[in-house]
Amino acid sequence: MWVGRPVKELPTPAFTVDLDTAKRNAVQMKDRCKALGISLRPHMKTHKTLEGGSLMTGGTLRKIVVSTLAEARFFADGGFDDILYAYPLPFDKVEECAALAERLEAFHVLVDSHEALGLLKRRHLCHSKRWKVWLKIDCENSRAGLMHSDPAALELAKAIAEGTTELVGIYAHCGNSYNCHRVSEIQSVARTTTMLTLKFMDKLAGLAPSLSSIGSTPSCSHPVPEMAQLSEVHPGNYFFYDAQQLTIGSCQLEDIAVRVLTRVIGHYPHRNQLLVDCGWTGLSLHSLGQLPTGYALVEGHPDLKLVGMTQEHGRIEPMEGKLDFAKFPMGSLLALIPYHACATAAMHPLYYIHSKGQVVGTWEPIRGW
Amino acid sequence: MWVGRPVKELPTPAFTVDLDTAKRNAVQMKDRCKALGISLRPHMKTHKTLEGGSLMTGGTLRKIVVSTLAEARFFADGGFDDILYAYPLPFDKVEECAALAERLEAFHVLVDSHEALGLLKRRHLCHSKRWKVWLKIDCENSRAGLMHSDPAALELAKAIAEGTTELVGIYAHCGNSYNCHRVSEIQSVARTTTMLTLKFMDKLAGLAPSLSSIGSTPSCSHPVPEMAQLSEVHPGNYFFYDAQQLTIGSCQLEDIAVRVLTRVIGHYPHRNQLLVDCGWTGLSLHSLGQLPTGYALVEGHPDLKLVGMTQEHGRIEPMEGKLDFAKFPMGSLLALIPYHACATAAMHPLYYIHSKGQVVGTWEPIRGW
Repeated sequence: MWVGRPVKELPTPAFTVDLDTAKRNAVQMKDRCKALGISLRPHMKTHKTLEGGSLMTGGTLRKIVVSTLAEARFFADGGFDDILYAYPLPFDKVEECAALAERLEAFHVLVDSHEALGLLKRRHLCHSKRWKVWLKIDCENSRAGLMHSDPAALELAKAIAEGTTELVGIYAHCGNSYNCHRVSEIQSVARTTTMLTLKFMDKLAGLAPSLSSIGSTPSCSHPVPEMAQLSEVHPGNYFFYDAQQLTIGSCQLEDIAVRVLTRVIGHYPHRNQLLVDCGWTGLSLHSLGQLPTGYALVEGHPDLKLVGMTQEHGRIEPMEGKLDFAKFPMGSLLALIPYHACATAAMHPLYYIHSKGQVVGTWEPIRGW
Repeated sequence: MWVGRPVKELPTPAFTVDLDTAKRNAVQMKDRCKALGISLRPHMKTHKTLEGGSLMTGGTLRKIVVSTLAEARFFADGGFDDILYAYPLPFDKVEECAALAERLEAFHVLVDSHEALGLLKRRHLCHSKRWKVWLKIDCENSRAGLMHSDPAALELAKAIAEGTTELVGIYAHCGNSYNCHRVSEIQSVARTTTMLTLKFMDKLAGLAPSLSSIGSTPSCSHPVPEMAQLSEVHPGNYFFYDAQQLTIGSCQLEDIAVRVLTRVIGHYPHRNQLLVDCGWTGLSLHSLGQLPTGYALVEGHPDLKLVGMTQEHGRIEPMEGKLDFAKFPMGSLLALIPYHACATAAMHPLYYIHSKGQVVGTWEPIRGW
């Protein structure tokens, strides 16, 4: 019902995606990987939509990463294959993983423990299929994964490569690139993660042919030449980008494809504030304390600060001085640039897709687990 | 498919509601209001489910508050009536409000500006129905509403009471009760909000018969005798309660009806941490910096701290000393008590309802706007 109508007429709060910008982001990442001579296995966790997945894979619907089994099933149902469920194998979901592994050409799981591997070894797949398994290693990110330097990692790799499980690849996430504030810092993290992963790959020599994949949007937005020695990368957020990536140095303002549209619902001159119809249900609270402009950037108004968010209300005031309320009449539209696009997208059951000011479609993300 | 099975078998992360506790919370709030001789108009924004609404209204399905039009339509479709959309009338949604006002016996809207009232005056309802309008006043909460002491508030009340709009009531939200840390502080806020509202009601004398409603879970969990002079109250969170309400002093630990169940997916002794399969998509980030135990309380383990959350991962470590990993085997279940139940519930497409350890149902909340 919204297709063909002006974006500015959308009901608020509305999560909007500038299709041209998102497409450009998708193409640029593919081009970067092509220039390096490596594959791109885009992560779906930011947008969680079939349409976004199609654009990020250049229409092949092959070679993706997901963060939940709900995503895995959704993309499989949507015709996608070669899906890597890049998450420490949950003990309660082995049967669901087996169903996907038996049904798809390539459904990959990830482990970082003998306990998890044991679950796979005990669940034989039909048609004598072998489980496609990636080993997660930790290259200074400190979340999941066995330490790259831990002899146990090599032992686990060997155990994966035996019997009913196949060692497909080595996976490292450089989430520590999110602590960076400039390109040189990002590239330093990218280089370290790459070199530690490659060093681990060297130890595997002779064991089995296996892929190597690292990722994060910051590192893949500013790749270092060493990354050419990897098999693939798996960034995700770059499709949308956001104010956090801008702060890190991953992108420019014009690369951010997403906004939350909101309308002015109140003028409160006695406290120099506007109210808008976007609270944390429309934006999330992820920016807390991270931006000088509060919970988001208000597009075109660097002098405004989104100082407070409750469930359905946002409070905006000027960075300094008195607010000129005449510039923001009741009902007028503002566009918020989210701090963390993954978190903001997760709050919306529908995305409004636009091009040159017109709504060209709506996308429905999957949620849950 | 889950009904009749043990809660401990649920797939994680799972949002669970202890039905007995939620029912008790609903009954206790009704009893408190009855003792005061005032009506309860429960807010639906925390759970957003038909089942929760039914329990909170004692099965009458009448007299509720909603925070979005999506909720209003959902509850109307579910057989509810006497619905107050307690939100500053959004300029883009007048037609949708009109449809509800024409369809329901009583659909109430709320305004705090002449501009919003003007929209209502210009949209005549069919069957010569009058718009049922509440005036929002601000009694030291500093969000929406005209200041209680502002002569403009009285003028607006008079304007509402004329022509095609009917002044049904005066509405104040004491969200400032969320800054409290003990019962005496809560009651001080409740008393101030009540007295300022009643003072405003006095000014209305002779204008029109009109209702008065204040609310917030803290103030209604510890009502002051002065509240007996109000017509009604409109708390919402009390159906679930949460760690924030515990911190404020609204409830006891045993009153909290909700948990997020999560499983251990990784042991990382080199950094003294566990990983669990609940990240911010399962809990929200609302607790940031508010609890000594991090992003949640880990039920039965006051010695644990949920120190970090990414999209699908939670990092847990001991408050001090070395973690005994043998106590938390891979795949074992932990229950997180959320800081802000409204925010955590908003992350889940399905709630698992249980009684005495067995799943007795699932509830599907509405979302969007």
